[in-house]
Amino acid sequence: MTAVPINTSRLSASSIKDVQVNYYLIPLPEVLSDAKHGDHTHFELVTCTITCNDGVSGTGYTYTGGKGGKAIYSLVKDDLANFLHSKDADCVEAIWEQLQYHLHYVGRGGLASFAISTIDIALWDIRCKRINQPLWRLAGGFDNRTPCYAGGIDLNFDENKLKSHIEGYLNKGFTAVKIKVGKDDVEEDIARVAAIRKHIGSDIKFMVDANYSMSPAQAIRFAKAIEQYDIHWFEEPTIPDDYQSYARIAEATSIPIAMGENLHTVYEFNYAIQQSKLAYLQPDASNIGGITGWLKVASLAHINNLKVCSHGMQELHVSLMASQPNAGMMEYHSFPIDTYTTHPVSLDKQGYALAPNAIGTGVTFDDVKLSPYQIK
Amino acid sequence: MTAVPINTSRLSASSIKDVQVNYYLIPLPEVLSDAKHGDHTHFELVTCTITCNDGVSGTGYTYTGGKGGKAIYSLVKDDLANFLHSKDADCVEAIWEQLQYHLHYVGRGGLASFAISTIDIALWDIRCKRINQPLWRLAGGFDNRTPCYAGGIDLNFDENKLKSHIEGYLNKGFTAVKIKVGKDDVEEDIARVAAIRKHIGSDIKFMVDANYSMSPAQAIRFAKAIEQYDIHWFEEPTIPDDYQSYARIAEATSIPIAMGENLHTVYEFNYAIQQSKLAYLQPDASNIGGITGWLKVASLAHINNLKVCSHGMQELHVSLMASQPNAGMMEYHSFPIDTYTTHPVSLDKQGYALAPNAIGTGVTFDDVKLSPYQIK
Repeated sequence: MTAVPINTSRLSASSIKDVQVNYYLIPLPEVLSDAKHGDHTHFELVTCTITCNDGVSGTGYTYTGGKGGKAIYSLVKDDLANFLHSKDADCVEAIWEQLQYHLHYVGRGGLASFAISTIDIALWDIRCKRINQPLWRLAGGFDNRTPCYAGGIDLNFDENKLKSHIEGYLNKGFTAVKIKVGKDDVEEDIARVAAIRKHIGSDIKFMVDANYSMSPAQAIRFAKAIEQYDIHWFEEPTIPDDYQSYARIAEATSIPIAMGENLHTVYEFNYAIQQSKLAYLQPDASNIGGITGWLKVASLAHINNLKVCSHGMQELHVSLMASQPNAGMMEYHSFPIDTYTTHPVSLDKQGYALAPNAIGTGVTFDDVKLSPYQIK
Repeated sequence: MTAVPINTSRLSASSIKDVQVNYYLIPLPEVLSDAKHGDHTHFELVTCTITCNDGVSGTGYTYTGGKGGKAIYSLVKDDLANFLHSKDADCVEAIWEQLQYHLHYVGRGGLASFAISTIDIALWDIRCKRINQPLWRLAGGFDNRTPCYAGGIDLNFDENKLKSHIEGYLNKGFTAVKIKVGKDDVEEDIARVAAIRKHIGSDIKFMVDANYSMSPAQAIRFAKAIEQYDIHWFEEPTIPDDYQSYARIAEATSIPIAMGENLHTVYEFNYAIQQSKLAYLQPDASNIGGITGWLKVASLAHINNLKVCSHGMQELHVSLMASQPNAGMMEYHSFPIDTYTTHPVSLDKQGYALAPNAIGTGVTFDDVKLSPYQIK
């Protein structure tokens, strides 16, 4: 049964006239490691600027840990730009659904979701500009600030460096921190967790992230061993595909379980909610289908009495997290995308991240800073 | 916990020296339509030729319905070719696992699976050549022929053209045929099914394929209405993400349910087996991670007392299907990839497709036929 045609192709002021795509490869200030992705030396940034007939334009983007970015660029440029031409940019959710099915055969999720994200964020930027609102208000308006934490990618740091890194976060005003776990020797992980809890004292929230490197049995053993250190959540203990083992781990420990950065369709979040006994869902608007996808997951979490958090791209998620009634904590991620914008994320005195009041998504890239890293 | 390093990087005769990637856009002889993908005018073909230090080489490939092919080309060329360099081509399954996690953050499934498929098939081609065997023997050796059916993409054909198309299949020796369903008016679908069953008589196996265009309720209503026409299977009644509704549909009708072309990880097949009450699994080696992925699904199906079938690329699947003890029917797909090879698929007098005895995968592209369509 073909769907009833959606009228997104009439020509009007808001019809899409132009889609520009850029690809950047940006070096990290230092090598950052985790248990499954190994060493990160760069991140990839793909930006997409959409312009309507009346000249209103918006910019979206996605990022990766260093692989697949050129394929995302190709998807947007070679497969989606033409498809978007003349569509009505006001019909954001209709376009989102059309893009899902346009790419469905080579989808679902994965790289297709990254490509759709760049477009959807650009369309939300346009939507905000047309209604003359900042994103945090248009996306829900619950608040203009959000609890947040600093997420380290620090498995390669020795204990002293790890401590001084965490110290740096606390000096910046963060009241919650996360470290990587998943060392070859679990005893080393346990010792690092103990050392950091001792170092930060009892008032700072403290999370651990295994980047799905453990077997379910290893994860349970590790969780039991660190329960005494007041762990706020245990993130990605095992592979994201193994929904039922997540439930086993959750049932075996009092530490709440979190995942989401590797779930790239709303259906995958639905499976996880139904099967995995998670406490925190962590969608990333750069890979769940943009703001539209992120808000769908946030709403699904709310309906299921769960907290929504975020992964990566803090300069955008600050507005989304602030907007939601069931926000947990926003991750301030170690990929410093926000430092390449005109408005890096700032914290208030209570350690909350502040959503920008600028009209649009609040994310404007600084071309002077970015241009040295443009490849395409 | 990082995995124990796999020794695929020692330099030897079988170390990978070179990876070449090509992209072709090939027009179809006529426009072919289905209920969700709309009109097909071309298919995309991405080939990958891997050469070892000792000069032994193999070719793999994937295809799409017209979107995403350039992104697959980019993934192989920009992200995977360097990664493969110096790896030992003999360690096919180790490389498969490494590729999965190399692309995991921008995976899982989707385009990453298409890219991994092209590489894995090339590695199997090399493996067959080193052991001097045809694929059907190395992949299992159960038989050198397989039951098969002709799969039409024919939703846009009127009833007379549909009949003459089916007649063409029967004249070529096929003993089983499939048509598309999913018209806006379900009564038209029912009438087409009735007309074709009447036209082909009772001895020919007959399947229908909705390309996930129906709601579960629509699918159940439709299935009940066509049960009287002896339907061998009902393929993709609803979206592949909705595993539980597949079970609802299966429980409501005596027609066996099939799916698989849109499941792109072995985990997705595992969910479908556990939840969807399918009778036939239809992995496609071009998008489930190549021959390694296809064989994993075939084995999983066998363990679960289910038939494995195939979708598309008959020139390769003929060998895989022949090799397996639990083979259902191979699809002879309407994308005529095999006519661009030196060995198009042929049928025996019983309507079985014959696996080639050539050393390797048995798929050798005809450069003279292909080269006019090469874009990259």
